[in-house]
Amino acid sequence: MESVNIVDELRPLFNPTSVAVVGASNNSTKWGYTTFSNLANQYKGMIYAVNNRESEVQGHQAYTTLTDIPGNVDLAVIVVPAEIVAEVVTDCVSKRVKAAVIISAGFAETGSKGKAMQDEVLKIAQKGGIRLVGPNCMGMWSAPANLPAFMFPMKIEKGPLALISQGGNIGSAIVADSTARGIGYQQYVSCGCTADIQIEDYIEYAGLDDSVKVILVYIEGLNDGARFVEKVSAITRKKPVIVVKPGRTDAAARAISSHSGALSGTDSVYEAAFKKAGVLRVDTSTELLDVAIAFLRQPLPKGRNLVVTTPGGSYGVMAADACALRGLNMIDLPDRVMAEFNTMFPPRWSHGNPVDPAGDRDVVQYMKAPEILLKCDEVDALIFMGFGSFSGITSVFASGDKSWSFDDLKMDVTEIEKLALSALQILDSGDKIQIKGLLQSILNITLGPVLATKAEELDSFADVISTALTTEKMMERSFFINLRQVFRLIANGQTGEINMDTVVSLVEPIIDALLEKWIDDYGKPVITTTFTEGTVKISEAGFSPYPNSERAATVLAKLLEYAEYLDRQ
Amino acid sequence: MESVNIVDELRPLFNPTSVAVVGASNNSTKWGYTTFSNLANQYKGMIYAVNNRESEVQGHQAYTTLTDIPGNVDLAVIVVPAEIVAEVVTDCVSKRVKAAVIISAGFAETGSKGKAMQDEVLKIAQKGGIRLVGPNCMGMWSAPANLPAFMFPMKIEKGPLALISQGGNIGSAIVADSTARGIGYQQYVSCGCTADIQIEDYIEYAGLDDSVKVILVYIEGLNDGARFVEKVSAITRKKPVIVVKPGRTDAAARAISSHSGALSGTDSVYEAAFKKAGVLRVDTSTELLDVAIAFLRQPLPKGRNLVVTTPGGSYGVMAADACALRGLNMIDLPDRVMAEFNTMFPPRWSHGNPVDPAGDRDVVQYMKAPEILLKCDEVDALIFMGFGSFSGITSVFASGDKSWSFDDLKMDVTEIEKLALSALQILDSGDKIQIKGLLQSILNITLGPVLATKAEELDSFADVISTALTTEKMMERSFFINLRQVFRLIANGQTGEINMDTVVSLVEPIIDALLEKWIDDYGKPVITTTFTEGTVKISEAGFSPYPNSERAATVLAKLLEYAEYLDRQ
Repeated sequence: MESVNIVDELRPLFNPTSVAVVGASNNSTKWGYTTFSNLANQYKGMIYAVNNRESEVQGHQAYTTLTDIPGNVDLAVIVVPAEIVAEVVTDCVSKRVKAAVIISAGFAETGSKGKAMQDEVLKIAQKGGIRLVGPNCMGMWSAPANLPAFMFPMKIEKGPLALISQGGNIGSAIVADSTARGIGYQQYVSCGCTADIQIEDYIEYAGLDDSVKVILVYIEGLNDGARFVEKVSAITRKKPVIVVKPGRTDAAARAISSHSGALSGTDSVYEAAFKKAGVLRVDTSTELLDVAIAFLRQPLPKGRNLVVTTPGGSYGVMAADACALRGLNMIDLPDRVMAEFNTMFPPRWSHGNPVDPAGDRDVVQYMKAPEILLKCDEVDALIFMGFGSFSGITSVFASGDKSWSFDDLKMDVTEIEKLALSALQILDSGDKIQIKGLLQSILNITLGPVLATKAEELDSFADVISTALTTEKMMERSFFINLRQVFRLIANGQTGEINMDTVVSLVEPIIDALLEKWIDDYGKPVITTTFTEGTVKISEAGFSPYPNSERAATVLAKLLEYAEYLDRQ
Repeated sequence: MESVNIVDELRPLFNPTSVAVVGASNNSTKWGYTTFSNLANQYKGMIYAVNNRESEVQGHQAYTTLTDIPGNVDLAVIVVPAEIVAEVVTDCVSKRVKAAVIISAGFAETGSKGKAMQDEVLKIAQKGGIRLVGPNCMGMWSAPANLPAFMFPMKIEKGPLALISQGGNIGSAIVADSTARGIGYQQYVSCGCTADIQIEDYIEYAGLDDSVKVILVYIEGLNDGARFVEKVSAITRKKPVIVVKPGRTDAAARAISSHSGALSGTDSVYEAAFKKAGVLRVDTSTELLDVAIAFLRQPLPKGRNLVVTTPGGSYGVMAADACALRGLNMIDLPDRVMAEFNTMFPPRWSHGNPVDPAGDRDVVQYMKAPEILLKCDEVDALIFMGFGSFSGITSVFASGDKSWSFDDLKMDVTEIEKLALSALQILDSGDKIQIKGLLQSILNITLGPVLATKAEELDSFADVISTALTTEKMMERSFFINLRQVFRLIANGQTGEINMDTVVSLVEPIIDALLEKWIDDYGKPVITTTFTEGTVKISEAGFSPYPNSERAATVLAKLLEYAEYLDRQ
């Protein structure tokens, strides 16, 4: 049954006005308990509990069957034993339910008997015009409906991603990692055995939803590869679709058959289908999220010519291997750039790509290097190592025994308080030129004592930063709120309350603004790294530093792969 | 100059009684500032500042030259421009300094002129019997001397690892990750251009130090491959040596030459040398630490036959691919095990390896599976997915709307308080049998209401756990301190102060104890996973859950590689 219009067809699923949970339970050891409580706590439409032995479920009236419910039901979430799902779906038909999420397991994944039950359920649903998610799935999320139709509570944010996963657990892990990194979803569907709505249908739906910027998919097996290629090709021309598809080995193929009931198929066939459909394949769920996040904010590279800047030689060595092994071209630096860096960096600098100032304490020179490189036609992309929370700039403040202190100002306390008050007035004025001037003064005053930089160099760097900080975009972000707060504390003589967190809250937006400026000015991707493991939040401007060069290089290689695919269209 | 006994030879380096910093500075923008402050803050031996323009450095008397220092100097840390290092090393000879760490850069890594300077410095040192670290390095750490001879402050713990790194930055990143994971070092040396003491010398020293359990190495290029193989072979028979060696690509080889001045060499030559020396090669710094941590607590597998248990099918699928791709053998489950699992799990369980109970809410059955598998002769190792902080057991308490509550006890408050007091008496008695009985009661009382488990099953599981909790090792750990604290709060009617952190502080040691019991009882490695990114601390018993199956499989493959190497000796 091919849908004429997938958006209309799946509207009751993603935007239901009423939901019934069949198998809703008062017994906390049952999935029907958490499935219902989850929805009842969050979903704002009509919600009904169906339980054939209770008159009340978690304080809500319970109905013996779906057909007993007085109002309309758009969506049924079914969490009853597999054996009675057919009966429940028959009730759905009677009740004119439009879509159902079958969480219940025990279908195609268990073998031929389960497959026969699944086919029976599908037949009933198709005859009754009901679209099915699952069976054997963990449920779904739809941001516009604020609908967490999951079998257990899960933290998920609204956001620009869509995730379709044939594995509920790996889907949950990806969502958990996304939440930790500060990114959310427009839709997430755990599609399980995918009896009715196919993976390509969900991709098409997400593809037609303008709120979705990147589509993430975990596939165990496709039911109709040709249909997948046809439908998904149309989407990948508009937005990236990134896929994890295990099953390269026999061991995994066997595991797939007992999990989602899918035929894993020959890996080379999938590889060819993905290539044809313009789908980007990655190996792990970490890469899936890494690459998706990059697409949200990075422009596509025009070619594979890459430069790396690094505050440390060994990082650069690892990056060179990681990039070259992924087909990126570590270019020789143009002569004019070599000449310029020779004047900027100490004689021991690396004299090549990766650009490594070799322990130069003058961080300003390092922060100038990206623009010099990005403006070269020879350069398509930059990996800037040591950004984000572990950036060179932050470390100047955060490490060492010598942090910046008010004593560096060598000023009278009342004088400082007066200056803070006048700074507040300037910030309140909204006058961009005055604000820029103020920022430049602050930067000169605070950076001067801690940076090993000549005054005129510092001045021109402060000019670059203050320009980056006074764009329309930046004016709306938290930087100015935080800055005002600092001046208020100074004006009130509460400088003791200014701590390292305060400093970071001002320094991180500066790094964000610089990164934004480089990317916007030159239209080339700039991927950043932190060097240490551990979750790093996506910045306010949408940038994510990757923990190491391997992950940064993978991201860049995938941006390039997508750019090349689009070029061929 | 081959040393007769490397331990004696390097004692002044790793256990100096006095240290001088040449180039110690009052100027916070100089590396000489942080190098000195770092040592002055922590090192307890005699410390001297040498500065030819100041009479005082950071409150310490400063000497114009080394030779002006009145007392003996074992170790000189040199942080002056490259051009005057030869002069300083000449002073070291006059002063009878025994070892020097040359942080200064600008030597072999910068080309032939720098190489000539380096050779000159080496000649002076060798003639004067001084052993050199570096040049162009970030310094070193020695736990017995509590000696942080680094160019900048770095958090490093004492511990069972040794790290030798030809890259200071990557070394720092590895140390930072180690600190975050809760593991430390006996020695860490950033060896830079390795003019004098060679990488194999440091490995030999660490190999002969019984406090070092695993040796981690980052190599850019070796000066004498045959010597490396000879020296390191003797060590790898006793303890694992794990190596990251970039330079597979030309881009990285070029970067290496400008970084450490090393000749990266043909990768296949290194590959062969590592194989011959029994060195385990990994690709990234993350893998280096992952594998090292596993060696600290896991036994070696006797073969490549592996089982995986997973709380989710997709995790299992990903694990099967990850393991099979790394040469591990996902065995078919023996018939008797199949039969046993058929009685334990719901009919929808995966019926194979990976073992997946497919959403069974009865977590007790899942926790029983490892012992059933580990006691099989057919099984050499287990990957147990979903352990640690994200384990099945913890999630029973931590997730869902239905957490455990005192109301579940259905008891009078004073009755509960009385029971808590008598529990405290039992804990104080030190009587293991009574304590075991107490633990078993507590487990039955608290788990009963939240687990979907039959009473007799729960009882036998409580017996397993309470046995695991009352081993000599466990009795010394924090579990009993935390448990006493909980009973004190209950006895004082302060149950409101018992929160999720309290629960986790009791549940995590239970998981630790179970894991320890499985490993100790069967002598087989049990690798665990969490599923989500982000740093996980090593547990009190020394176990580390890995975030995903790819990392777990890499670890297991390396344990196997080492076991096979030892078998061949």
